[in-house]
Amino acid sequence: MPELSLIDSIARQAAKQKLSPSILKGIGDDCAILRPPPGRDLVFTSDFFLEDRHFTRATFAPGDMGHKALARSLSDLAAMGASPLFCLVSLALPHELGKAFITDFYRGLLRLAHQTGISLAGGDLAQTKKITADVMCCGTIPRGQALLRNGAKPGHLIYVTGRLGGAAYALRRGSGSRHWKRLVRPQPRLAEGLQIARLASACIDISDGLSLDLHRLCQASGVSAELDRRIPVAPSASLNDALHGGDDYELLYTAPPRIQNLPGHRIGVIAQGKPGLVRFQDRPLQLAGFQHFQ
Amino acid sequence: MPELSLIDSIARQAAKQKLSPSILKGIGDDCAILRPPPGRDLVFTSDFFLEDRHFTRATFAPGDMGHKALARSLSDLAAMGASPLFCLVSLALPHELGKAFITDFYRGLLRLAHQTGISLAGGDLAQTKKITADVMCCGTIPRGQALLRNGAKPGHLIYVTGRLGGAAYALRRGSGSRHWKRLVRPQPRLAEGLQIARLASACIDISDGLSLDLHRLCQASGVSAELDRRIPVAPSASLNDALHGGDDYELLYTAPPRIQNLPGHRIGVIAQGKPGLVRFQDRPLQLAGFQHFQ
Repeated sequence: MPELSLIDSIARQAAKQKLSPSILKGIGDDCAILRPPPGRDLVFTSDFFLEDRHFTRATFAPGDMGHKALARSLSDLAAMGASPLFCLVSLALPHELGKAFITDFYRGLLRLAHQTGISLAGGDLAQTKKITADVMCCGTIPRGQALLRNGAKPGHLIYVTGRLGGAAYALRRGSGSRHWKRLVRPQPRLAEGLQIARLASACIDISDGLSLDLHRLCQASGVSAELDRRIPVAPSASLNDALHGGDDYELLYTAPPRIQNLPGHRIGVIAQGKPGLVRFQDRPLQLAGFQHFQ
Repeated sequence: MPELSLIDSIARQAAKQKLSPSILKGIGDDCAILRPPPGRDLVFTSDFFLEDRHFTRATFAPGDMGHKALARSLSDLAAMGASPLFCLVSLALPHELGKAFITDFYRGLLRLAHQTGISLAGGDLAQTKKITADVMCCGTIPRGQALLRNGAKPGHLIYVTGRLGGAAYALRRGSGSRHWKRLVRPQPRLAEGLQIARLASACIDISDGLSLDLHRLCQASGVSAELDRRIPVAPSASLNDALHGGDDYELLYTAPPRIQNLPGHRIGVIAQGKPGLVRFQDRPLQLAGFQHFQ
């Protein structure tokens, strides 16, 4: 199957989406063209989704892969308090998977795109031995109002938007277990990101685990953190799953204590001390989350 | 080597660049932040650069890989008549290559970024078995003035910005041969893209070969093409290299015959006829360029 007709086939699938009016040209030329919405800043992120690193063919259906490849990048938009605008999807795959795989991959991806209001505007397609996706997402924010990692201050409270450890539990227990859908089709916390955008002082999404991502937030803010004893653990999951398991894609954020009615669970407080240090039960917490390079 | 310190190390290399004032936040948060330049449209492209598909470790130095990964995407900006603004670089590589490889890869990439005025603003880093790069480039154009593939009309003349086949010759002859530098460190035709932006009727960059990329341009424009007998062939290269060899990254464009003093060589004329058909020496030309998926 030549590349030309495969790209045509993806373009036909994508043509069913309601394209953002800001996208003047989507799939089909050397570049996509965007007329930036007035009065907004744009945010950009790209995330790999790699076979045998982030998923396996045995446990993820092609539509799950498409969903999760996009969800990972959307989660970064959520963490900035951004509204999704458009994405570029680079997909490389073995020849033998062919057109049916590609159609299913994009069906899963486009379904989440539709749900979250992001337009597929372009990308790349290539042949390789292992399934390799890299998704670039662009979102918009009111000018100057991006939610960064570096605004947490001593005394600010630490929150998480949902229970943790479900994805790690499902990964341990295997296909079809409790929380399995959460592992293969995570829902990026875009609504929560918008809700906290003007209230939170710092935010990051939990892709690699609470301990590691809280460490990153604290390091960026030059502060340390004290976690409460009661971390919200997903049903059946262990405390270890919740502290160190990746792939939950909840938002982890901080806010001054005067701010009420924030979404999710309060899990600790920001403190002075060694930048990046996270303490739990009065002891430094080991960083044991998922590192892409170790 | 943990991912955190590798990203810090890339961020330190990138910190030496003169960041575009439009980039409010580069490497180091969940997303990069852009304040779009007023009165401009933005164009976006992403291109894979894959080991054993587009290059091999035996013949490309790490700095060549960084250069070429970026050059391929910049060439798409050139084909739109765009000015480079910023890029996101996703790089996955085997653990054993380590920090020295990463430093050299980014040194090659940042050198070309500096030469072409594009800012490295973010990306991703992961571990995998084969070196995998995906580079997203964003450029700007005056509002409504993107140069597309679809404006070629019968009677328009066809041009190419330089001699063709050099990269294919170097690929055949191997490391150190004539045109080798052209293969490993191609120069995207950004100045030519800007020069022709308001004059050309259609444009594409030649990444996969003249025959295939001219076919694409003609198909998008709904026209056919007649190539002259005299294609500008790079010294030592064959006519076959020039017609079908990929990786030259010259611009292929069309313009109405009244327009004078266009850069490069005139190589043919647009005709009515079957959309996408390319004729050479009075016969249909077989499409034999590089297809990423075949």
